[in-house]
Amino acid sequence: MIISMKLHANKAEIEEVCERVRELGYKIHAIEGEERCVIGVVGVGDVTNCLESLEAMPQVEKAVRISAPYKFVSREFRETKTVIRIDTPRGPLEIGGDEFVMMAGPCSVESEKQILDTAEAVAKGGARVLRGGAYKPRTSPYDFQGMEEEGLKLLAKARELTGLAIITEVMSDRDVELVGDYADILQIGARNMQNFALLKTLGKSKRPILLKRGLSSTIKELLMSAEYIVAHGNPNVMLCERGIRTFETVTRNTCDIVAIPVLHEMTHLPVILDPSHATGKRSLVPALTRAGVAIGADGVILEVHPCPNKAVSDGAQSLDIAQYNAMMKDLQPYLQLWKASRVENAVMA
Amino acid sequence: MIISMKLHANKAEIEEVCERVRELGYKIHAIEGEERCVIGVVGVGDVTNCLESLEAMPQVEKAVRISAPYKFVSREFRETKTVIRIDTPRGPLEIGGDEFVMMAGPCSVESEKQILDTAEAVAKGGARVLRGGAYKPRTSPYDFQGMEEEGLKLLAKARELTGLAIITEVMSDRDVELVGDYADILQIGARNMQNFALLKTLGKSKRPILLKRGLSSTIKELLMSAEYIVAHGNPNVMLCERGIRTFETVTRNTCDIVAIPVLHEMTHLPVILDPSHATGKRSLVPALTRAGVAIGADGVILEVHPCPNKAVSDGAQSLDIAQYNAMMKDLQPYLQLWKASRVENAVMA
Amino acid sequence: MIISMKLHANKAEIEEVCERVRELGYKIHAIEGEERCVIGVVGVGDVTNCLESLEAMPQVEKAVRISAPYKFVSREFRETKTVIRIDTPRGPLEIGGDEFVMMAGPCSVESEKQILDTAEAVAKGGARVLRGGAYKPRTSPYDFQGMEEEGLKLLAKARELTGLAIITEVMSDRDVELVGDYADILQIGARNMQNFALLKTLGKSKRPILLKRGLSSTIKELLMSAEYIVAHGNPNVMLCERGIRTFETVTRNTCDIVAIPVLHEMTHLPVILDPSHATGKRSLVPALTRAGVAIGADGVILEVHPCPNKAVSDGAQSLDIAQYNAMMKDLQPYLQLWKASRVENAVMA
Amino acid sequence: MIISMKLHANKAEIEEVCERVRELGYKIHAIEGEERCVIGVVGVGDVTNCLESLEAMPQVEKAVRISAPYKFVSREFRETKTVIRIDTPRGPLEIGGDEFVMMAGPCSVESEKQILDTAEAVAKGGARVLRGGAYKPRTSPYDFQGMEEEGLKLLAKARELTGLAIITEVMSDRDVELVGDYADILQIGARNMQNFALLKTLGKSKRPILLKRGLSSTIKELLMSAEYIVAHGNPNVMLCERGIRTFETVTRNTCDIVAIPVLHEMTHLPVILDPSHATGKRSLVPALTRAGVAIGADGVILEVHPCPNKAVSDGAQSLDIAQYNAMMKDLQPYLQLWKASRVENAVMA
Repeated sequence: MIISMKLHANKAEIEEVCERVRELGYKIHAIEGEERCVIGVVGVGDVTNCLESLEAMPQVEKAVRISAPYKFVSREFRETKTVIRIDTPRGPLEIGGDEFVMMAGPCSVESEKQILDTAEAVAKGGARVLRGGAYKPRTSPYDFQGMEEEGLKLLAKARELTGLAIITEVMSDRDVELVGDYADILQIGARNMQNFALLKTLGKSKRPILLKRGLSSTIKELLMSAEYIVAHGNPNVMLCERGIRTFETVTRNTCDIVAIPVLHEMTHLPVILDPSHATGKRSLVPALTRAGVAIGADGVILEVHPCPNKAVSDGAQSLDIAQYNAMMKDLQPYLQLWKASRVENAVMA
Repeated sequence: MIISMKLHANKAEIEEVCERVRELGYKIHAIEGEERCVIGVVGVGDVTNCLESLEAMPQVEKAVRISAPYKFVSREFRETKTVIRIDTPRGPLEIGGDEFVMMAGPCSVESEKQILDTAEAVAKGGARVLRGGAYKPRTSPYDFQGMEEEGLKLLAKARELTGLAIITEVMSDRDVELVGDYADILQIGARNMQNFALLKTLGKSKRPILLKRGLSSTIKELLMSAEYIVAHGNPNVMLCERGIRTFETVTRNTCDIVAIPVLHEMTHLPVILDPSHATGKRSLVPALTRAGVAIGADGVILEVHPCPNKAVSDGAQSLDIAQYNAMMKDLQPYLQLWKASRVENAVMA
Repeated sequence: MIISMKLHANKAEIEEVCERVRELGYKIHAIEGEERCVIGVVGVGDVTNCLESLEAMPQVEKAVRISAPYKFVSREFRETKTVIRIDTPRGPLEIGGDEFVMMAGPCSVESEKQILDTAEAVAKGGARVLRGGAYKPRTSPYDFQGMEEEGLKLLAKARELTGLAIITEVMSDRDVELVGDYADILQIGARNMQNFALLKTLGKSKRPILLKRGLSSTIKELLMSAEYIVAHGNPNVMLCERGIRTFETVTRNTCDIVAIPVLHEMTHLPVILDPSHATGKRSLVPALTRAGVAIGADGVILEVHPCPNKAVSDGAQSLDIAQYNAMMKDLQPYLQLWKASRVENAVMA
Repeated sequence: MIISMKLHANKAEIEEVCERVRELGYKIHAIEGEERCVIGVVGVGDVTNCLESLEAMPQVEKAVRISAPYKFVSREFRETKTVIRIDTPRGPLEIGGDEFVMMAGPCSVESEKQILDTAEAVAKGGARVLRGGAYKPRTSPYDFQGMEEEGLKLLAKARELTGLAIITEVMSDRDVELVGDYADILQIGARNMQNFALLKTLGKSKRPILLKRGLSSTIKELLMSAEYIVAHGNPNVMLCERGIRTFETVTRNTCDIVAIPVLHEMTHLPVILDPSHATGKRSLVPALTRAGVAIGADGVILEVHPCPNKAVSDGAQSLDIAQYNAMMKDLQPYLQLWKASRVENAVMA
């Protein structure tokens, strides 16, 4: 931490700050500016509170954190990328490695026929993971809330028939165990990114986690939430950019695509893009998926439905099967460039 | 709903939309524009999905909801304001009525002495409700997480000694019952405003709820979250404006103070202002509290600590006892104007 | 400035930074952290560029500015508030002093009758300044663009008849002189807050300036734009909070009311509130005006029209004469409290 | 327009609205809902004002625009893409056609050597357009403001020597003619996107315009600003996504990359990406450029400097020559895919 004193602070005022720093368990290295004293502080502890507490002192101009507030998820902690390994009926799947991972499926599990048809189609088109919600976070209490455990059972059936791994959302710490019994990956929705009770429970799960960025969460807050899960025992976390909330309303959210290379610089965890929620509009999904591949995402998670116009949720942003297949075909040369670049990086490292 | 077709849509395209509308369980009233057909739709159901589903049809330009997506919390449903009544050792307390309600106390319960000293001081200064967190939502897993049940017991003790009602945060549906055994009001933090599992459980609690607006939640989403609680059985919800997240960083959040009269127009529920989180800075709290009284809030919830520089959390935005007392004194003429205006409105109604 | 090096930066890397600092014309004060070196820098120059340039060096973690980037407008430069004096036919008017200043009038000057009727009414109701646009910044090229010089002449006539001072917008550096021939105060719209060519020209005007905060401008950027005007020779600048752009769409903008006391802490310039643009909705204007008085604004600028439903622009947010009069009556006790507080502060200072 | 009345509005209230609509010069098509009356309106005029004026009537719930507020720039007005042709010493250049256009150069023109060295290098690397600012919009009046006409002359010299076309910023309507004498393309900065006096003057220029999206401007507002230029006589406008302002501070701005395909759906004008301002950080520029190519931008404009650490502005986001060359090499296969896709689209159309 660096503490900058107000202009012309006197000795007693400076000493009072230093004393407070020591009380909080940190050590001092001081420097005298010409007009303005600056104090360097080192040590470990509840830095957030320490900064707030020091800034609250009237003689302090500014207190700034220098080192990152997270540890386990940082690139400084581990330089090589985390590769998450999942056993599927079709063999092992690696996320964060040399394969671009396609996760696809409907927003909600609606019926046996709907989920099995979709699973079969997306598997054929190159997906390795099937998405589908059994517990649905809906803004309105009057909207469809999901098939719950019955939906989980249908996902398990789809897994068995197609060999796809299953990703599905868990909304409450109460459900972590149950959902973990059926799913290969637990998805945490944007609105639960800072549900700290849930994050702690996820730390005790044996399942990998896909953690979506909150609607108005900074990249650092996303990393702090991942740190919660890792610090509580579960190192298998992947992050997901799904668009943030801004003043722009033409799209459902604003995709912060640059968050992907930024996260690669800051953390070793895999980064997934959700082009469906990021845009909210089917016609924009293929172009954004291409951009996600080009910018270096480790995978995408997107919505596919056999009949989007009849979907109980998110129909407007779901591709139908034909659109999904066309997109996958169009994507192939970009995926080859992606793969070549991964291999090249591996050779250089 | 109003559906506007694309320019020059033909009969068949229009009929396809009408058919889809009927499938979804709604009725049609059609109008032919000169160049552009517009379709009026009435009925009830999962309107969110219906709008999305219709907008996804290629011949549709726009589908707009006309009536509000919430019912029980709207002014159309109930014109007279909800008054929440709480029994306290010092007699009944009404929130949303003719008394401006002051809630004050530390961010976190830290020790018996700290909470009892604060309780006594804020009670003397005119507060009727003591705030204090026993379960703390913290961005970092390494920051202080709260005294949990031990903290709840200290709050209960403070209640007994001072006659103040107790408000404290609940972070998980698991804890709703336990916290409800100690507290008079359950506080839901901004980051849990769309924790739908929690909202449903709160619907079954007998305790009044203070629901904080999410960092990037619209006023309509706040009302939808309140609707969740009311629709699940608990009508005693008060709303809290605590600042939203914007690009401005000089203050911790940006206080959307106009949300207070906007909410009074849209809903009958009481509206509380949190000037501490809205600003993040102690020196700004008294001025914003004055503005909150002047604009017609039903109360404020603010942070007071016997020694803010030593607080384990939120020290920078906490008033000390002397500052709290000075603020309360300065506030009196504004509170009298507030009261006069309430009485006048009651007479006119 | 404070420069924090990356972890374990070596001597040569540190020396390279120090050399670059000296090249840029600054002096070094160094401090060695246990693991991380921090360098203190003092001096004057193009600090923005210096920070960017240093942060671009690979061995640098962070470069932080400590002192404010503006000088003349800061409280450190001048502790006592700036009072802007304007001669009006009804005698001197002070802005930033002991009188709360009411500026009122239509969005656009539309006709002689419209502007004279409004001027008479707002003067009777207690306004000292008449607003009215002759040059209109409109999002669409097809919307009404203003009466231009003809409108200015009507404003001058209204001034003569009522004794009100005139405030009107100037949109281009070309028009600064002409508008200054008619108006007492030049208003700079939100979309021109960073029109630097215009700001420089305003520095040469003899007229006081009301500078509106940009839709997405930070408080610091607002001060920097004021600094432009002051640094180019015109010290009579007042700042105006008129709402910022956020994700919330129920109101036209989000009023950052806390910017008012924040600005009072940071600058000696007067601060005006525009409750009409901040809300976009007539019914919210009186409540926000009350809050603006309570929080310590030096005045308000608001829209009044004899027949808002027929206004050529901003009808939805304009009060009619009866509403304006009712608001002014309701405001009186708040204005008395405002005045008492100003006098008390003056006595204490 | 569609006007939705409040619940249970009576005949007289509805008739009053209809009369107001007719007064404003529009025609009525009415529809009676079961509980809520909806009125369809057609015609042309100042729709913004009409909507506001109607929404201000107490019996009106909502007034919604259906058709877009711009004409000339819309895809409905012209289906085929606008191709802007520029004569350069190296032959004709097309923007919006079958060639991906690379614009590169320093933020500011600093000296003859700097600009000529950069020009030569970027030309060799595949650029067709040289960027470089002679008039600089700077947040602080104390920062470097540009070399002005002297800088323009250096740009003209670089054009002559390298055959590159020149793009440079114009900040005031006063300078449009002068800058147009030297430059091939006039660049309008984000902070001037709604400088309407400037936009009108640009409509009279013979030079193509690159219009940057404002920091907090919606896509529709960007199109409205382009409409200003086109409606005033200049059809050669290209749009530029350069990042918007959000709560995220890790990057300088948040790149709304999806705006590119959204704009392609809404307008026929070419769309350029500025990855330098969108990120503010050199290390992120190559990845974002790749994504921009993949998502279908018509070109990019980016900052290159022979010695970024010594640049007088924007050093942190400028590539050096070696980085630029490495990026261009890495980009080739993406540019081939881009070209193949353009040709395929042309064949299909």
